[in-house]
Amino acid sequence: MTTPQSPSAEDSLIARYFKPIATDPGALGLVDDAAVLSSSGEDIVVTTDAVVEGVHYLADDPPETIARKALRVNLSDLAAKGARPAGFVLTLALRSQEDPWLRPFADALGEDARNFVCPLLGGDTVSTPGPQMISITAFGRVPRGRMVGRTGARPGDRILVTGTIGDAALGLDVLKSGAAAAALTSDVAAREALVSRYRVPQPRNLLAQAVLDFATAAMDVSDGLAGDLTKLCAASGVSASVDVASVPLSAAAVGLLARNIICVETLLAGGDDYEVLCTVPPVQSDALIAAGRAVGVAVTAIGTIIEGHERPRFLDEQGQELSLARLSYSHF
Amino acid sequence: MTTPQSPSAEDSLIARYFKPIATDPGALGLVDDAAVLSSSGEDIVVTTDAVVEGVHYLADDPPETIARKALRVNLSDLAAKGARPAGFVLTLALRSQEDPWLRPFADALGEDARNFVCPLLGGDTVSTPGPQMISITAFGRVPRGRMVGRTGARPGDRILVTGTIGDAALGLDVLKSGAAAAALTSDVAAREALVSRYRVPQPRNLLAQAVLDFATAAMDVSDGLAGDLTKLCAASGVSASVDVASVPLSAAAVGLLARNIICVETLLAGGDDYEVLCTVPPVQSDALIAAGRAVGVAVTAIGTIIEGHERPRFLDEQGQELSLARLSYSHF
Repeated sequence: MTTPQSPSAEDSLIARYFKPIATDPGALGLVDDAAVLSSSGEDIVVTTDAVVEGVHYLADDPPETIARKALRVNLSDLAAKGARPAGFVLTLALRSQEDPWLRPFADALGEDARNFVCPLLGGDTVSTPGPQMISITAFGRVPRGRMVGRTGARPGDRILVTGTIGDAALGLDVLKSGAAAAALTSDVAAREALVSRYRVPQPRNLLAQAVLDFATAAMDVSDGLAGDLTKLCAASGVSASVDVASVPLSAAAVGLLARNIICVETLLAGGDDYEVLCTVPPVQSDALIAAGRAVGVAVTAIGTIIEGHERPRFLDEQGQELSLARLSYSHF
Repeated sequence: MTTPQSPSAEDSLIARYFKPIATDPGALGLVDDAAVLSSSGEDIVVTTDAVVEGVHYLADDPPETIARKALRVNLSDLAAKGARPAGFVLTLALRSQEDPWLRPFADALGEDARNFVCPLLGGDTVSTPGPQMISITAFGRVPRGRMVGRTGARPGDRILVTGTIGDAALGLDVLKSGAAAAALTSDVAAREALVSRYRVPQPRNLLAQAVLDFATAAMDVSDGLAGDLTKLCAASGVSASVDVASVPLSAAAVGLLARNIICVETLLAGGDDYEVLCTVPPVQSDALIAAGRAVGVAVTAIGTIIEGHERPRFLDEQGQELSLARLSYSHF
């Protein structure tokens, strides 16, 4: 047998850090191995995303931002499916249960759970000799049969995207002292804004009802706009034409592009945007944009779904197709 | 930016290994980031359990048994909650996506998913520089408000347990060349049976309906019978008296006890049993035992719930209380 330790090590960790934030009745105060998700006949949308130290976040990222990112990447999936958050379960692989990292992690997680009305329902804490890992499975609710999938895009649909694209990739570059970091040496505010975009996604849950109402297909942009649109088109059996000049960019990204510090591919194929990409019949495009405006989320039309099975085309202002060497960011 | 690799690495891994076993309509062919769990008004029971290489399984355990254990520890939770399996999502942290380990892993996982009628609905594969890790969140269905919790045990209830207790702990001892291994050198069959109990739990899902029908409280025994009963009693605000001679043991365990190779604490506080521990009003005790017999699951009465807040007492055949130095196995 391996060395037995305190029988209540995991229990006391859970009681200390996570019970205070597990206030939903379905969490049963975390005294059970299981949680209850009630339903009144709607569909439960299930999504799961894990983040690994050194792969999806940096070992010296603040625990607060790691917690928020771990939950928000899942909230972003729910938003893109048109689902209202219903709760989540957490698996935490820790090197040590006494980690001082846990207090700010749990506090930030609890704050996000409250703010996004997505309560902690349960979880599992395990020890690991390797990197920390956080796996979250989140649940949302949609009316029966109404989850917004990837397969419904039709030729003629407008392609819309929320927020700005590519900032998180630039934030990672700043953290890794890349070209963007060097170019922004004197602009602390821009650097911090980009890093914040990488560390703390802003999932578009306020837009979920409008996505449910208007979108024919949707997904969140997590691996790069170009690659993710390619996946959406493949799932729908269509192609797309994107007007690259319409892709919404931050002032920092525009500045770096203008100075030739980065190329547009960095933005279109960068990961971690956590914006909603969706397709909408032309007559409803304005309604979705207006719905975004009503909740403070910029929604921008960037192109059109077309017939065909080719990879989406990204056209510059002269109508010339850009050749993208890569479409996505991959952690593998 | 870190080195980008094939944009479709994760997608092709999923398509190759997991799409063939994700046949449930709610899995959407794994082309979406989300899955759909339909509901017609019943409660969804959610449980999540992770296993880490070198902690919960051994690095040289066969991939088939790792897959089965990862799923079955969750199925065992559902069984103890009286829930019918509804599906699961899988998070897989891998060192390499080309791992030959994946084919037998996925095949065995698919086989168990079919046999336990618990379909794969979705998941996430991530890369890790550390140990492999498998996190599964499983779902079950119970009639609204009927999940069997830990808080309902009442004085007078009989304490029942399925199967035999302590074999998995002995199996781990065999794998680690401990005292049991030495004592069983010439008994290959016994060694293999014990190792199999450690590597491949036998969750009691066939008994779930009877647990739902008869149990006042239930949980699965995963960290040791003594510790798990202590948790159940604490959650219910009761104590318990256990007749140690009634605790069901395998022939191998009885033999090792008789030879003084192990002490009873090894069995009562050993982990990984994945049996159902439940409390039942005395008048329904026989009905649950009969229900077990009908589905081929041994159910044994081992004691009685009593008033009080003391730790459960474990009594030997002379009625003397055993002093257990530890109650549970802890991975921390």
